[in-house]
Amino acid sequence: MSVRLLETIADTRSALEPARRQGQTIGLVPTMGALHAGHGRLIAEARQGTNLVVVSVFVNPVQFDREDDFTRYPRDLPRDLAFCEAAGVDVVFAPAVQEMYPAPQRTFVEVTRLTGHLCGRFRPGHFRGVATVVLKLLNIIQPHRAYFGEKDAQQLAVVRRMVRDLNLPVEIVPVPTVREPDGLAISSRNQHLNPQDRRAAAALYRALCVAQQRIASGATAPEDIRRDVLAALQPDPRLRVEYVEIVDPDQMQPVERITAPVRVALAVWIGSVRLIDNLLCEPPPRG
Amino acid sequence: MSVRLLETIADTRSALEPARRQGQTIGLVPTMGALHAGHGRLIAEARQGTNLVVVSVFVNPVQFDREDDFTRYPRDLPRDLAFCEAAGVDVVFAPAVQEMYPAPQRTFVEVTRLTGHLCGRFRPGHFRGVATVVLKLLNIIQPHRAYFGEKDAQQLAVVRRMVRDLNLPVEIVPVPTVREPDGLAISSRNQHLNPQDRRAAAALYRALCVAQQRIASGATAPEDIRRDVLAALQPDPRLRVEYVEIVDPDQMQPVERITAPVRVALAVWIGSVRLIDNLLCEPPPRG
Repeated sequence: MSVRLLETIADTRSALEPARRQGQTIGLVPTMGALHAGHGRLIAEARQGTNLVVVSVFVNPVQFDREDDFTRYPRDLPRDLAFCEAAGVDVVFAPAVQEMYPAPQRTFVEVTRLTGHLCGRFRPGHFRGVATVVLKLLNIIQPHRAYFGEKDAQQLAVVRRMVRDLNLPVEIVPVPTVREPDGLAISSRNQHLNPQDRRAAAALYRALCVAQQRIASGATAPEDIRRDVLAALQPDPRLRVEYVEIVDPDQMQPVERITAPVRVALAVWIGSVRLIDNLLCEPPPRG
Repeated sequence: MSVRLLETIADTRSALEPARRQGQTIGLVPTMGALHAGHGRLIAEARQGTNLVVVSVFVNPVQFDREDDFTRYPRDLPRDLAFCEAAGVDVVFAPAVQEMYPAPQRTFVEVTRLTGHLCGRFRPGHFRGVATVVLKLLNIIQPHRAYFGEKDAQQLAVVRRMVRDLNLPVEIVPVPTVREPDGLAISSRNQHLNPQDRRAAAALYRALCVAQQRIASGATAPEDIRRDVLAALQPDPRLRVEYVEIVDPDQMQPVERITAPVRVALAVWIGSVRLIDNLLCEPPPRG
């Protein structure tokens, strides 16, 4: 069995119709291509959880806040197809921009409150673009389950809230972050790092582990955790911290005291590359 | 065969599942109840076009810009059920507010540009609430076709654009306005008019017919049409004009010259009742 490449919405709907009518379940892994081991994990989960796996490959212009970031986002469809073939994907849906946005897009989905902190504060319009394109993809593929990585924790929270608030008939499955041996979360943006910056980038995960350990040991003041995370990052002048925040995992709101599991999340610039990461941190069980 | 009343999303989805699996088509007529001959026409179209007709009855708090309008909006479910029974409806979906909005709604659909004029200018947030609840209903019922009246022309344009922009797998079917013998467009708000105001309300349609005739005779300047419509309304001091606009039928933007079919639309207050109406007006064929 070999992966099938489809580039139009109509072809994709027709291709999925027989499986759907036979009662097979469909899993969607939405991606912007440049597939890596993180996507591999999403695909493996989808293969386990559904009968037919669709990977969408679409670099969505509407979610980029910086033109240069959109332009230089890596694109290599033949390589992504080979990756999907090896991973046992059934269908790759790779539409052109014109196919997804044939006319000026007038309709946008806004998820309020959840987008007020973290990346939402620094990338205006980003999550509006993400929510809108994810909704379009869900409507085109109509999957039973869709798989999102925990590395993009705010995106995952936004998509989950959208699905719930709009009564979408799909289950959103969160998938753990895949890391390099030194802890760096795998991301297509890592390939833009030069060797020294790549080594420096390991500090992000180390700093998050400091937070996780402090919280597990009973620290409850977010400002203390924040200070410890910054202390773990700032010795290296290559790292410019955009934010470090401690938020509740559902609403993505800063907490005043850590009495339940929280997400410690950060964004750091290394040269012209922006990296994000986060870790779920649990306080000790109450005695 | 008798109409089935369902009040939860889960029950409604289960009830529709067997028909869907058998390949039957489902038609949705979204309403706020207070059913009248206009809804009757929508239901009749749905019965013609689909195998199984669902009428939703839900007074959506999110689309009301004035609290008093929401509070006094007429509600009479037993009467609406009897109406649906007589009209041959299969399922009435009548959820409580708590069922549709179990948690604070954070996700909203915005349709830009199309909502900048007409009612959108005077009812801030109204179309955001309409688009959001219509999308929820479409996701709950997953109909093959959904039916909307042309009386609410801007709402129809907004829903059509949303469906197109979000790739929703549903066909939106427009249904002509039903009128009283004197031309007044049937609306649940008409019942709030006292007898003198009711007689005065017939001027709305007469004014629109003036516009239609002038445009059919070759008038091309929107400001002339607007002046004629106002002249047909203003002799009566009971009528307070909110807007009269001449827009293109898809984008709902004011036109500079009438060279293609336009919608002449108006909103008029009579006492504390706000009425809207519109007419598609076509210029003469070019010679």
